[in-house]
Amino acid sequence: MIKAGIIGATGYAGNEIARLLMGHKGVEVAWYGSRSYIEKKYADVYQNFFQLVDAKCMDDNMEALSDEVDVIFTATPQGLCASLINEGILSKAKVIDLSADFRIKDVKKYEEWYGIAHKSPEFINEAVYGLCEINREDIKKARLIANPGCYPTCSTLSVYPLLKEGLIDPSTIIIDAKSGTSGAGRGAKVDNLFCEVNENIKAYGVASHRHTPEIEDQLGYACGEEVMINFTPHLIPMNRGILITAYASLKKEVSYEEVKAVYDKYYNKELFVRVLDKDVYPQTKWVEGSNFVDVNFKIDTRTNRIIMMGAMDNLVKGAAGQAVQNMNLMFGFDESEGLRQIPMMP
Amino acid sequence: MIKAGIIGATGYAGNEIARLLMGHKGVEVAWYGSRSYIEKKYADVYQNFFQLVDAKCMDDNMEALSDEVDVIFTATPQGLCASLINEGILSKAKVIDLSADFRIKDVKKYEEWYGIAHKSPEFINEAVYGLCEINREDIKKARLIANPGCYPTCSTLSVYPLLKEGLIDPSTIIIDAKSGTSGAGRGAKVDNLFCEVNENIKAYGVASHRHTPEIEDQLGYACGEEVMINFTPHLIPMNRGILITAYASLKKEVSYEEVKAVYDKYYNKELFVRVLDKDVYPQTKWVEGSNFVDVNFKIDTRTNRIIMMGAMDNLVKGAAGQAVQNMNLMFGFDESEGLRQIPMMP
Amino acid sequence: MIKAGIIGATGYAGNEIARLLMGHKGVEVAWYGSRSYIEKKYADVYQNFFQLVDAKCMDDNMEALSDEVDVIFTATPQGLCASLINEGILSKAKVIDLSADFRIKDVKKYEEWYGIAHKSPEFINEAVYGLCEINREDIKKARLIANPGCYPTCSTLSVYPLLKEGLIDPSTIIIDAKSGTSGAGRGAKVDNLFCEVNENIKAYGVASHRHTPEIEDQLGYACGEEVMINFTPHLIPMNRGILITAYASLKKEVSYEEVKAVYDKYYNKELFVRVLDKDVYPQTKWVEGSNFVDVNFKIDTRTNRIIMMGAMDNLVKGAAGQAVQNMNLMFGFDESEGLRQIPMMP
Amino acid sequence: MIKAGIIGATGYAGNEIARLLMGHKGVEVAWYGSRSYIEKKYADVYQNFFQLVDAKCMDDNMEALSDEVDVIFTATPQGLCASLINEGILSKAKVIDLSADFRIKDVKKYEEWYGIAHKSPEFINEAVYGLCEINREDIKKARLIANPGCYPTCSTLSVYPLLKEGLIDPSTIIIDAKSGTSGAGRGAKVDNLFCEVNENIKAYGVASHRHTPEIEDQLGYACGEEVMINFTPHLIPMNRGILITAYASLKKEVSYEEVKAVYDKYYNKELFVRVLDKDVYPQTKWVEGSNFVDVNFKIDTRTNRIIMMGAMDNLVKGAAGQAVQNMNLMFGFDESEGLRQIPMMP
Repeated sequence: MIKAGIIGATGYAGNEIARLLMGHKGVEVAWYGSRSYIEKKYADVYQNFFQLVDAKCMDDNMEALSDEVDVIFTATPQGLCASLINEGILSKAKVIDLSADFRIKDVKKYEEWYGIAHKSPEFINEAVYGLCEINREDIKKARLIANPGCYPTCSTLSVYPLLKEGLIDPSTIIIDAKSGTSGAGRGAKVDNLFCEVNENIKAYGVASHRHTPEIEDQLGYACGEEVMINFTPHLIPMNRGILITAYASLKKEVSYEEVKAVYDKYYNKELFVRVLDKDVYPQTKWVEGSNFVDVNFKIDTRTNRIIMMGAMDNLVKGAAGQAVQNMNLMFGFDESEGLRQIPMMP
Repeated sequence: MIKAGIIGATGYAGNEIARLLMGHKGVEVAWYGSRSYIEKKYADVYQNFFQLVDAKCMDDNMEALSDEVDVIFTATPQGLCASLINEGILSKAKVIDLSADFRIKDVKKYEEWYGIAHKSPEFINEAVYGLCEINREDIKKARLIANPGCYPTCSTLSVYPLLKEGLIDPSTIIIDAKSGTSGAGRGAKVDNLFCEVNENIKAYGVASHRHTPEIEDQLGYACGEEVMINFTPHLIPMNRGILITAYASLKKEVSYEEVKAVYDKYYNKELFVRVLDKDVYPQTKWVEGSNFVDVNFKIDTRTNRIIMMGAMDNLVKGAAGQAVQNMNLMFGFDESEGLRQIPMMP
Repeated sequence: MIKAGIIGATGYAGNEIARLLMGHKGVEVAWYGSRSYIEKKYADVYQNFFQLVDAKCMDDNMEALSDEVDVIFTATPQGLCASLINEGILSKAKVIDLSADFRIKDVKKYEEWYGIAHKSPEFINEAVYGLCEINREDIKKARLIANPGCYPTCSTLSVYPLLKEGLIDPSTIIIDAKSGTSGAGRGAKVDNLFCEVNENIKAYGVASHRHTPEIEDQLGYACGEEVMINFTPHLIPMNRGILITAYASLKKEVSYEEVKAVYDKYYNKELFVRVLDKDVYPQTKWVEGSNFVDVNFKIDTRTNRIIMMGAMDNLVKGAAGQAVQNMNLMFGFDESEGLRQIPMMP
Repeated sequence: MIKAGIIGATGYAGNEIARLLMGHKGVEVAWYGSRSYIEKKYADVYQNFFQLVDAKCMDDNMEALSDEVDVIFTATPQGLCASLINEGILSKAKVIDLSADFRIKDVKKYEEWYGIAHKSPEFINEAVYGLCEINREDIKKARLIANPGCYPTCSTLSVYPLLKEGLIDPSTIIIDAKSGTSGAGRGAKVDNLFCEVNENIKAYGVASHRHTPEIEDQLGYACGEEVMINFTPHLIPMNRGILITAYASLKKEVSYEEVKAVYDKYYNKELFVRVLDKDVYPQTKWVEGSNFVDVNFKIDTRTNRIIMMGAMDNLVKGAAGQAVQNMNLMFGFDESEGLRQIPMMP
């Protein structure tokens, strides 16, 4: 039994880590960190844990925390993890950072897109990008994981195989993404009020969303060259779920079977990535509450483009689930331990 | 490892039984019955089970089914279970009926409210009303369970202790209930289309809903006299969840502490019924996806009435979860096996 | 052409007044007051008015405003109107206050329920409670209107006729109310975030909601005695709409036709109150965006109670629409001017 | 005062025509056609019209109808209008067809994409494509209008100016569209049930949706060459609204101001097309219930692409509103008569 601490436990992602770890056989949560709610009972903030969690919220003292736990999850705003981490902490506990602090290898790019100075650039190289299906072996050996962003997870897993196998032209990639509102966090903002989101849809961060360079980096690794894409996220009136619809020009004529074979090559041994049957398109509802990513594609012979689609739960595979999957790899647990939830329908 | 069969596996409740049993250590589903989808792969109807369930849908031959499994769940319209059941079946398999066929002991009352003739009145007496927190010992010995309706489960658990202890006047009980739309089933009806339900609320079955006599029976057992209530259900634009708000006149002056003590007397050893803290009211979101029922109350000294509230997930504790809980009791499993899901938030 | 000023123009109710007045032939809005957005273009705050309103937001100087306009709407938090109003203002402009400041005649009751001191008790007596269908003649002569609360409007109109005609027992009235989230206003609070409201339902203000004494006052006027009720509001995952379900014991045996005749007596000349056909229950969707209130009832002979139901759009008849209706009466416009919107479906 | 008949009056678009015409000073609806509800009161099917419309539903006898009215709206499935129309009808009444029957000039293309034989190809040439902002003069003289599809209206208006002015490369156009569920109609299908749509998003008709050739035709007229695009619609859990996000490569370097000037050139005299301010993106909520289309764009200098966005209410500008706008042009009414609704927020 290992011990885990969550910094940022009262955000939606932090709460989801708590939910998943409660069903995990090898871990117990020893620290619910939440600066805003110090001394308040965690179950008073998240009533779903009433009678299940007795602990009170703690502050975000990562130093103290590292003495008490084996693994620390930081589900906090950009910059916090980078400002707290140090060699002492990493020598005592493994860290899985759900913020963007260690996802982008080029510190200038990070500082440019995020508009803040990076406080611990010395750990960027060591950090492993925790996209389990792609970096599994490195994750197993890591002390510090940069847990991928929600959009990048769904986008990369949907596009990666075709790019890696050279089927699509990297310069033509356009990713049109749609996300449920939990991705916007639990902060009290007018824009996220029920009456502003319900019965509404909008694009946001057009040509400027911070997940763009993260996706570009990952796709760049796949094809071995620098990639620039269009990425447009949209806010959808639902709690959970991300759907991405990606477009790219095919580099040569390919059949359905050939493309399917490529996806299968990468994913047929992967538990959490499901390549759907022909002409069955991903829907967020079919993965809600689970760690699955459903992907599929459609070739359009008229335009010589391929449409790639992926759906997942932004709080599970897009955040907490993937963080737990990373933890499982790092500590030698079964990779799916605590993550075998069946999607809930309806 | 016992085997289970589900008749009506492609309804929302049937699908939820499948979801819960997949996480149960002692049961495997051997028969996905669905007359409408015979020969179709179950995972093609419920894509959440893609790559998880390989079986095809079967018909509803209960006779044949009873040879193959240890327990049969009938998640079917009223009348079907009563028309199929017989001594032969019951001698081979235990039956948990999610329809109303065996819930009401007075066959005339059943036929009046449901408008159909009861095909097996001879089994009504044997059937045990599967409200686990109240009839636990009888359930353990039963061959045939009448799994309670969704509204009756939430209503009874919220009101029962005060009635049993004589605190409230049975002739003054009014239950105003609100349910998510999954309670209406998966049938293709204009009334249940997204555009008809979304941004809308309405009462239905006013003074005539079929769950009325079922609730009245259970409340009658509690206080030892015949009870007649007002019960008004409302359709809410959400998928899951039932909230009941019940009103009754207090028979004597009582303090918060006295009432709380009564609820605690009945529920403080119950895992699935959570009596909330003072002035914290039940919300369906805090129990979604789980088998919990959250209850609480408020005394109004101005009117000498008490307001009792209960919230649960209509597909879990209100249907599939309670069915699995009954199965656990009948087969000697841990009562919470397969039912330890943490409510999902958001 | 008269001129109107709106104080609190950037709240949901204020915005709705602006929407309705834009379609009104006899009024032009000359002042969009909003302390939080001073100097910002109104159409930048409410983009629905892009290219339709060019004005900038002004402060809430009621004194200055009264020199420029004929009528002032105060769609502001409790206490503001009472703190600003004076004889000078009222001598120059008519005031329609959408807050609760002048709704309750007993200043002590107001101060008790609202927890604030009343700053202008001297105007309470003069103020007319602007429930047009009941106080029409007084409204025509008024300088100061207390525009009714949303719940009280729907509750009173649904229950009033039966109480006035002595059909129901005032001591047995229970009102279970359900409201869309726009009733909670546009303030940035965690409780009103999309992810907290969506897929959720809860009761709030149980036995303590501030609209209780307002409803009790109005019902008391109807039956000529003091009335105490139970009133329980619930938050529904929809933008607009209030549904109330009211219960009371009948004082004598009555037929459907007799009760229908009573409702018709009060409402068959009322444009905005529609008594539905037998067994057709009010739904908020059927009145959305309009000034209609749909009411109906069901007699339950089993319990000798009657269930009264009413549905309306909380922002129209429950706030802005009724305010405009009051203005029409005060200024001699056709009562339905600017209010002939057909409900939008879906 | 002219008279109008609606065939298909009980669909969502038909109901919306009825709503809009009720506020129109120059038209009265004389025929509510609905084969499925013959002899039923229209207000019993659409309760929003209770006490407002007394008429009963009639059949779809277009011949008889043309003797009684001046204009016929056919809000019916594909093929019906083409199967009923003839010279006799057109000599007596003008026809505005909301189906796709006369939108596509190439009858083979129509038959291929719609999978049905065209019953009156002889009228295809005469029919005018009723996109008012583009074909205004032709519409004024027309007897038969092909009212544009919802997606094509929003897509064409968003992309047209840039294509017409040669700023974007036609071969690179990708349109990712999102629609509320009312676009799917009022038919009772499992896929459109509340529980299937709510908390879900999916793409459908990928690379095969029937609106593709219609959009391609219109864009082809704009640039004077054949255009082939990718068009991917998505189903959004909301009642109303369409948002399109379109991508294209710029043919040359352009500034924000240059592109803005192009949009303004086409739309600054158009009442119903609003080009938003810089960096303000269209949201469906801000146009709900109105005939407005909000458009805007963002240049991405990194990829040399431009992102064009448009939002509208699919039932108004995307169907009924545009039909009324066409009628206004054909009969010499003010173009905005009956269409001055302010968008409803929230």
